Amino acid sequence: MQRSTGGNVNTDMINLSIDQVYDLSVEVLGRNGFSAPHAAVIAQTITAGQRDDCQSHGLYRLMGCVRTLKSGLVDPSAQPIITHPAAGVVQVDAQRAYSLLAFQEGLPHLAEKAKRNGVAVLAINNCFHFSALWPEVEAIAQHGLAGIAMTPSHSWVAPAGGTRPVFGTNPLAFAWPRPGGNPYVFDFATSMVARGEIELHRRSGKPIPEGWAIDKNGQPTTDAAAGLDGAMLTFGSYKGSALSTMIELLAGPLIGDWTSLQSQAFDGSTGGTPLHGELLIALDPDILGRGQRAINTAGAEAMLDAISGQGARLPSERRFIARAKSEREGVWVNRALYDEIKSLGATPSPQA
Amino acid sequence: MQRSTGGNVNTDMINLSIDQVYDLSVEVLGRNGFSAPHAAVIAQTITAGQRDDCQSHGLYRLMGCVRTLKSGLVDPSAQPIITHPAAGVVQVDAQRAYSLLAFQEGLPHLAEKAKRNGVAVLAINNCFHFSALWPEVEAIAQHGLAGIAMTPSHSWVAPAGGTRPVFGTNPLAFAWPRPGGNPYVFDFATSMVARGEIELHRRSGKPIPEGWAIDKNGQPTTDAAAGLDGAMLTFGSYKGSALSTMIELLAGPLIGDWTSLQSQAFDGSTGGTPLHGELLIALDPDILGRGQRAINTAGAEAMLDAISGQGARLPSERRFIARAKSEREGVWVNRALYDEIKSLGATPSPQA
Repeated sequence: MQRSTGGNVNTDMINLSIDQVYDLSVEVLGRNGFSAPHAAVIAQTITAGQRDDCQSHGLYRLMGCVRTLKSGLVDPSAQPIITHPAAGVVQVDAQRAYSLLAFQEGLPHLAEKAKRNGVAVLAINNCFHFSALWPEVEAIAQHGLAGIAMTPSHSWVAPAGGTRPVFGTNPLAFAWPRPGGNPYVFDFATSMVARGEIELHRRSGKPIPEGWAIDKNGQPTTDAAAGLDGAMLTFGSYKGSALSTMIELLAGPLIGDWTSLQSQAFDGSTGGTPLHGELLIALDPDILGRGQRAINTAGAEAMLDAISGQGARLPSERRFIARAKSEREGVWVNRALYDEIKSLGATPSPQA
Repeated sequence: MQRSTGGNVNTDMINLSIDQVYDLSVEVLGRNGFSAPHAAVIAQTITAGQRDDCQSHGLYRLMGCVRTLKSGLVDPSAQPIITHPAAGVVQVDAQRAYSLLAFQEGLPHLAEKAKRNGVAVLAINNCFHFSALWPEVEAIAQHGLAGIAMTPSHSWVAPAGGTRPVFGTNPLAFAWPRPGGNPYVFDFATSMVARGEIELHRRSGKPIPEGWAIDKNGQPTTDAAAGLDGAMLTFGSYKGSALSTMIELLAGPLIGDWTSLQSQAFDGSTGGTPLHGELLIALDPDILGRGQRAINTAGAEAMLDAISGQGARLPSERRFIARAKSEREGVWVNRALYDEIKSLGATPSPQA
């Protein structure tokens, strides 16, 4: 199927159904050495990214997954090990695989524990990470729970008032279940922008805005390469910096895992994806809500409606619009990217 | 005792020991109608503020406490009602008193539940709030736990991209226990600045910086009065706005309590202190830390040292320096303020 653009046929893009995106992803991941459970859950997340028009977390990511696998660091078939250190905690050791299977296997325990205890924690350890956090907090919200997720990364970001990197881009994500529709969801980096954003500017030779990064000497820079060599900055100055410190502590040492400095030291200069931990917290509105569910929901909805009712966008609105469109019309994929992915799928790797 | 300033004697300031600040506060609160348990815990918090040189949360606040009491809204002697809806939750109904006694009575349960379940929540409902959150998260850290606290307030702050107020100044506080010293602590408003900061500018006729507030028509303003009539802005643009939305939901409807819009609607135009809920989360590093406490502590300390080691201040450093000084030398209080407070203490209210 080809996209028709104003009478012309656009042969640069092809149309795929959501199922086709998933099947292609599973095939490519399987042929390149991922075990069936890992391939399925990674494909789900990549499909969700493509469906929601998050291009950088869609099919494009398949290439990064396969490339990282070839480095030999990420285990493509490790089975997560689940432990239950306390009634409110499920801990999953990903065993140096990607995080997603660990999340999938931990989620039912997290939901069950939150619904019994009112609050519960899922701590994922020893995982590599390439994915956004919104699919995970959305999955928590599908259980009728409020969900929080956070993770450190590599030490790329300087603290406010400093000149040298300490923090990762340290995303924080949150979801709140809403009646009869999509949840309220945000997922943002505590750095001013994603690292990939600065890399895109470097590749295209464009200057970066002030406030994104400082150079090696701690001076403000608009040069993307100098910023990548120096340090990125947090959003929101001292407050963003404090929040990023919290994420280092809670998704690092609190759960027996690494800070971004430690993940960076392990990686050295290979430029690999971070090896670290992830913290998720689930809270049960039914247990905490004082038995007045309808009143609480009305209060929450009135507040959210007061935001969107004045024309201010809720954080994930763009994604949800794209999702609905993809579910109706399928997704459009760049043909060059599609061909490149197909070639990955057609070439069985030594592990396959 | 009078402060000597370079040979001159400064008779505008008087020196009080920390115990004297506490005793004075208890006396004034008691004489103005607070029950002994409320007076003691409010005095503790006011003393902590004065000791840490947070002047606006120190003795100065006594006057606000007494003034609010006279409005008849705040119950000065209500005994908090504690319930245990689940193994990981303690819920305290403050019964329209100030929040602090509810926190004090809930804290031992929160700590005990977190140490048994790995994570626990203290939900305080139906409380009036005048105090900072850092004394509370510091108290959680004294139990060896990581602590998070948040609360809505009145709807004074517009969402990013909007023009009309929805959020409160919605503070978020966090503490992490450090070995042999003060915890890592932050406590910040998710508004760009505290509302009192804009009020100070209005009183002194000074313009406010751009980015603090918008006027009634949603236009940027540097006029403090126009900003107070319009809407304050969040820190960190869309990200700060998302965070503030999360605080509305978690410390409001999640726990069966009000959003800032609802608290504002209840208050009408009396300008009273917000009536609402507060959410505190405690996490146990011993349960979550995979049995490697020394390694985890070393990782956390290395990260925190990497911040302060490059000359970037940790969030509460100024307070801790003031605290140590106050513990050695007592605190200096403006004599006019002291006299005003003494006069409050000397005048028994009808309730006393």
